[in-house]
Amino acid sequence: MIETTSRTGGHLASSLGAVEMIIAMHRVFDSPQDKLVFDVGHQAYAHKILTGRKEAFASLRQEGGISGFPKHSESEHDAFDTGHASTAVSAAVGMARAKVITGEPGVAVALVGDGAMTGGMFFEALDDAGQKEIPLIVVLNDNGMSISKNVGSVRTRLSSMRLNRNYVRFKRFLVRELDTSRMGKWLSKHMDSMKNRIKNFLLPDLLFEEFGFVYLGPIDGHDIKNLEEVFRRAKDVRAPVIVHTITQKGRGYAFSEKDPEKFHGIAPFDVETGLVEAAVSKSNSDVFGDALTELAKTDERIVAITAAMPSGTGLKDFAAAHPERFFDVGIAEEHAVTMAAGMAACGLRPVVALYSSFLQRAYDQLLHDVCLQKLPVVIAVDRAGLVGADGETHQGVYDPVFLSSIPNLTVYSPATQQELVHMLRLAIDRGEPACIRFNRGRLMQSVSQTPVERGIWEVIHPISDWTIIASGPMVEIALPVAKELGVGLINARTLLPLDDGILDQLAERKGKVLVAEESIAYLYPTIAARLQPLTVCGVHLPTAAIPQGSVKRQRAWYGLTAEKMKQVILEEA
Amino acid sequence: MIETTSRTGGHLASSLGAVEMIIAMHRVFDSPQDKLVFDVGHQAYAHKILTGRKEAFASLRQEGGISGFPKHSESEHDAFDTGHASTAVSAAVGMARAKVITGEPGVAVALVGDGAMTGGMFFEALDDAGQKEIPLIVVLNDNGMSISKNVGSVRTRLSSMRLNRNYVRFKRFLVRELDTSRMGKWLSKHMDSMKNRIKNFLLPDLLFEEFGFVYLGPIDGHDIKNLEEVFRRAKDVRAPVIVHTITQKGRGYAFSEKDPEKFHGIAPFDVETGLVEAAVSKSNSDVFGDALTELAKTDERIVAITAAMPSGTGLKDFAAAHPERFFDVGIAEEHAVTMAAGMAACGLRPVVALYSSFLQRAYDQLLHDVCLQKLPVVIAVDRAGLVGADGETHQGVYDPVFLSSIPNLTVYSPATQQELVHMLRLAIDRGEPACIRFNRGRLMQSVSQTPVERGIWEVIHPISDWTIIASGPMVEIALPVAKELGVGLINARTLLPLDDGILDQLAERKGKVLVAEESIAYLYPTIAARLQPLTVCGVHLPTAAIPQGSVKRQRAWYGLTAEKMKQVILEEA
Repeated sequence: MIETTSRTGGHLASSLGAVEMIIAMHRVFDSPQDKLVFDVGHQAYAHKILTGRKEAFASLRQEGGISGFPKHSESEHDAFDTGHASTAVSAAVGMARAKVITGEPGVAVALVGDGAMTGGMFFEALDDAGQKEIPLIVVLNDNGMSISKNVGSVRTRLSSMRLNRNYVRFKRFLVRELDTSRMGKWLSKHMDSMKNRIKNFLLPDLLFEEFGFVYLGPIDGHDIKNLEEVFRRAKDVRAPVIVHTITQKGRGYAFSEKDPEKFHGIAPFDVETGLVEAAVSKSNSDVFGDALTELAKTDERIVAITAAMPSGTGLKDFAAAHPERFFDVGIAEEHAVTMAAGMAACGLRPVVALYSSFLQRAYDQLLHDVCLQKLPVVIAVDRAGLVGADGETHQGVYDPVFLSSIPNLTVYSPATQQELVHMLRLAIDRGEPACIRFNRGRLMQSVSQTPVERGIWEVIHPISDWTIIASGPMVEIALPVAKELGVGLINARTLLPLDDGILDQLAERKGKVLVAEESIAYLYPTIAARLQPLTVCGVHLPTAAIPQGSVKRQRAWYGLTAEKMKQVILEEA
Repeated sequence: MIETTSRTGGHLASSLGAVEMIIAMHRVFDSPQDKLVFDVGHQAYAHKILTGRKEAFASLRQEGGISGFPKHSESEHDAFDTGHASTAVSAAVGMARAKVITGEPGVAVALVGDGAMTGGMFFEALDDAGQKEIPLIVVLNDNGMSISKNVGSVRTRLSSMRLNRNYVRFKRFLVRELDTSRMGKWLSKHMDSMKNRIKNFLLPDLLFEEFGFVYLGPIDGHDIKNLEEVFRRAKDVRAPVIVHTITQKGRGYAFSEKDPEKFHGIAPFDVETGLVEAAVSKSNSDVFGDALTELAKTDERIVAITAAMPSGTGLKDFAAAHPERFFDVGIAEEHAVTMAAGMAACGLRPVVALYSSFLQRAYDQLLHDVCLQKLPVVIAVDRAGLVGADGETHQGVYDPVFLSSIPNLTVYSPATQQELVHMLRLAIDRGEPACIRFNRGRLMQSVSQTPVERGIWEVIHPISDWTIIASGPMVEIALPVAKELGVGLINARTLLPLDDGILDQLAERKGKVLVAEESIAYLYPTIAARLQPLTVCGVHLPTAAIPQGSVKRQRAWYGLTAEKMKQVILEEA
C-alpha cells in the first residue's frame, strides 16, 4: 500500500489504520455471502489486496487499473460502490432487510469512519434500523479524525473517551462510585438529573443504544484476535449491532503516523522521506482561500464554511486568520448550506466551499433554503470538472446542469485565476445567491483585464464566421485554435445568466458556433435553442460515468481538445 | 383556522396542536429580534394570525393570498422560509452564530415537530451546534405523530415515554430504585452495562445531552403558563437548549382530534361534519399504489419504500397487503434511496415513492448510489408538475432538468393513467434505474393502446408541417389543438432517453416543432439542439419560484394552455 500510493497517490492513512480490522473481518465474515460495505471507501485497500487484487493493486487509480474506491464491477467482494460519506449504513440496512425477505443467510456489515457520524444519512439509517430484527453490523472505525480535525459534539465525546486508555475499567469504577458513594447517594437524592448527566458524559455507548443498537466496545482496532472475537459475537446477535473500534490513522508508516491528515489523500511521495514534490504554483483552491482571507479583513460580514475540507478547499489560512468566522461543520453539506442561509438572513455574507461532487448533497438546500429566498450565500464549487484519478464518484461534471434548474442563482465560471478572485469579490458584493465553479488544479493566468460583470461574457477574439464559446479551463484550450483558424472566441464567464448581448450579436452575424465546456452538455443545448436557426456544435462530456485516468487523458477520450475543436470547425465549414 | 381551512384546505391538525405553544413563544420571545423559525411550517398558522395577518388569513393558500408556509416576504416575523422538513435547526444555528458575530441581541428559536427528527439534517445541526456557546433554543413539538404514523427508533422512544402521564416522577423513582435498591446494587456490581441500558431506556433526555444540548422537559405543550416559564429559563441559558413539549395534534376540533392524520393536510371540508367531498375518480397516486400492490402479488422481489408519506403516495393498501415488504423510513429521502440501492444489490426490486420536490433531497443518492451502479431501483416521482396551493416550496417542476444530468437513468412520463401502470410494470421488469414522473391529480384515461417501450414515443397524430411534442398532462391539453389545427402530435413517453427514431423522422420532414412540458425547460432546448436547423418552439415554465394558486391558473400564467399553443403555431406559421 505504501509503495503503490507513493507512485500513484491515494488514500493511504485511512487504509493503513484499517488493516487489522479488515483481516479480522475477512476471517469472521464470509464474503460475498456476508456483505461488506465500506463507507467512502478510503479504508478499503487491504480488502482489495485480500480479495484477489494483490497483483493488480500496483495499478491503483491509474487508467484501466484498480479503483481507489470499492467497485462491484471489479470484484464480487465489493458489495456496494462507495465514494461519498455516510452511505454505508443505509446500503447495509437495505441488504440486511433483503436477506430477511429473501431468506438468504449472512449478515450485512458496514465499516464506517467516525467522520461519517457527522453526516445526517448515518443517523437516518440508525434511526430506521434500530430495534428491527435484521442482521446488521455497523463497525465504527474511530480514529478520532475524519478527513480533517475533529468536529461535532458526538465526535468530541468519542475522542474525549479515547484519551483514557483504561476506559472500560474507568467507566465501571466511576459508575459504581456514582451509585454507591456518599456523593452518588446525595446526587441521587437531590440532583438526580445532574447525576445522570455526569454518567452520560462518561458513557458514549448510550448514543447508539438510544437508537436501538446493541453496543460492543470500545475495542482496540489493531488487536486482530480481540476483533475476531467481538465480530463473532456481533454476528450471533442477529439484530443491529455497533462495534466501536479505536484505531490509529496512518498506522505502520512513520510519516503517516506522525501526520495522518497529510497522508489522508496524498499525491505521489518519496517513501524514504515522506515528502511530496512541492507545487510550483498556487492551485485554484489556494487562490480562492487567499482571496477570501484577504476580503474578510475588510468585510466583517464574511464567514467561511467547510464540510470537513479546510485543507482541500484552501481554507486553512482563513481558519487561522479569522477563527471566529470559520466554521467546519463536519461532513454535512446539507446543514452547511442551510446554516449559511440562516447566517445570510441575519446580515452575514457566508461563503461555503464544497467540491462539486459533494454539492450534489445540498441541491435541495441550495434551491429551497438559499435561492427561493434570494439569500446572499456564495458557494465556491471546487473540483468542478474532471478530477482525474478519483474517478466516477468524484467527477465534478454534473453541476452546470443541476445548477441550471435553480431559480435566482448566478453561476460564475472563471477561465483564469484572476477572474476567480474578481468573481468572488463580485459575488459577495452583489449579495445574491451565487456559485463560482472552478476546476481541480490551476486555471491559466489572466490574458485580459476586462472587468468581470454578472451576465457579461468576454470577447477574446471578435465574433466571426465561426465563433467558439468556451467556459472555464476550455478557454485556455480554445485559445490556440482561435488563433490558428482565425475564428472568434468568447469566454463564457457566467453560465447563469447567459450574455444576451453577445448572443444577439451572434444571431445577427449568422455565423456558426462551437460551444466547449468541461462538463455534461449545458451551454450547448441552451445556446443551440437560443440561436436557432444557426448551426451550433458542441464539445462536452457525455452524461455518463467517467472512469479514472489523468485529466489530460479524460479530456482526450471525450474530445475536449484543441485537435477536436479544429476538426469540428474544419469539417462543418 | 378551522373556518379558513374548511374553505381553502390546509395543514390544520399541526397548527391546532401548536396554538398554545405559539402564544407562549410570542409572550416570551421578542420577534423579529428573536428569530422564530418554523420547521416545515405546517404549524405556523397561529403565528401568522398573531403577527398582523388575522384579516388576511382568510386568503390562505389562495392566489395572491397568505402562504401556507412561513414567508419572509409576507412578514418580518417569518424569520426564515420553510416548507421541507428538518431545515429549521440548521437555519437557527446560522442565525445564532450570526448574533454572536454581529453582537446583536436575542436568540434563535427553532420550532420542530418530532417528524423532523427522522431527517438527517436535524442531527447534522445538533451535532454541529452542541456545546457551542450560541443563543439557540430548539422547541421539540412532540405530538407522537409526524405526517403519518410513528417510525424510527428515536421517536418510538419518545412516544413510549409519552404514555406515562407522571413521567418525571416515574423517572425519578426508577432511577433512585436502580441506584439504591438491592437489585440496583446487584446490577451495579455484576451487570453494570445492563443497568445503564435500563436507565437509558427510561431517560429520553439523554439523546439530546449526548449532542451537548441542555434538555428541558418533557412539558405539557398546552399549558401556556408553564411554557412561558420554561421558555424564559431557556432564554437565559445562552447555550443550545432543547425544550421538549408534548402536544396533541389536531387539538380543539373534535374531528381533527379524532383523526389527526386525515386533518394533517386536508382538502376543503364541512366544519359541521368534518367530511371532505369524496373523490369521483382515482388520483394518479391511487393508480400507482393499486398497480404496485397488484404487481407485488406475483413478484416477490418487489418492495415499497416511503419517506413518511404512505397516504400521500397511495401506498396504504400496499402496506396492508404486503406489510413485510413495506418500509416507511421517516422523513429521510436520502436514506430511503440508498437503502433501496442496498436492497437492489441483493436481488430485490425496490420502488421508492417520493414527491418530486422531496426527491430533490436525494439527488446525490440517486446519482451516486443507484445510477452509477445501475441498480434496479424505481422511483415513483409523485406531484411532478404544478402543485397548486402549496406554492413555491412544493412545485415539482425542476426534476426533468436535474434528472437529465444523471447517467444510466430512464425517465418515464405517462400521459394517461393506463400508461402509468404500464410504465411501472416495464420499469420493474427491465431492472434498471428508472423514474416515473406523474403529476398531482388525475391524468386522462387512455386514448391509445400502443404498448409502452423505453425510449419510444407515441405518434398520436402523424408528423406534419407542424408537430407538437408534449409530455405528461400537456398531451391532454395539446389534443384539441392538434385536432383543430390538423398538426402532428407526439406523446413523449420517455424524457430519458429521447426517441431517436421519431426525432430522425422530424428532421427528415423539415417541419416546425412545438415542445410542451409542465416543468422548466428540459425537452425544449434538448430537442432544439437535436433538430438543428429546424424551428423548435416551446411552452414551459420559467426557471423561477412559482407562487400559489390553482393549477389551472398557474398553467394560464405561463401559457401552458391550448390557446397559447395555438397562438405560437399560428404566429410562427
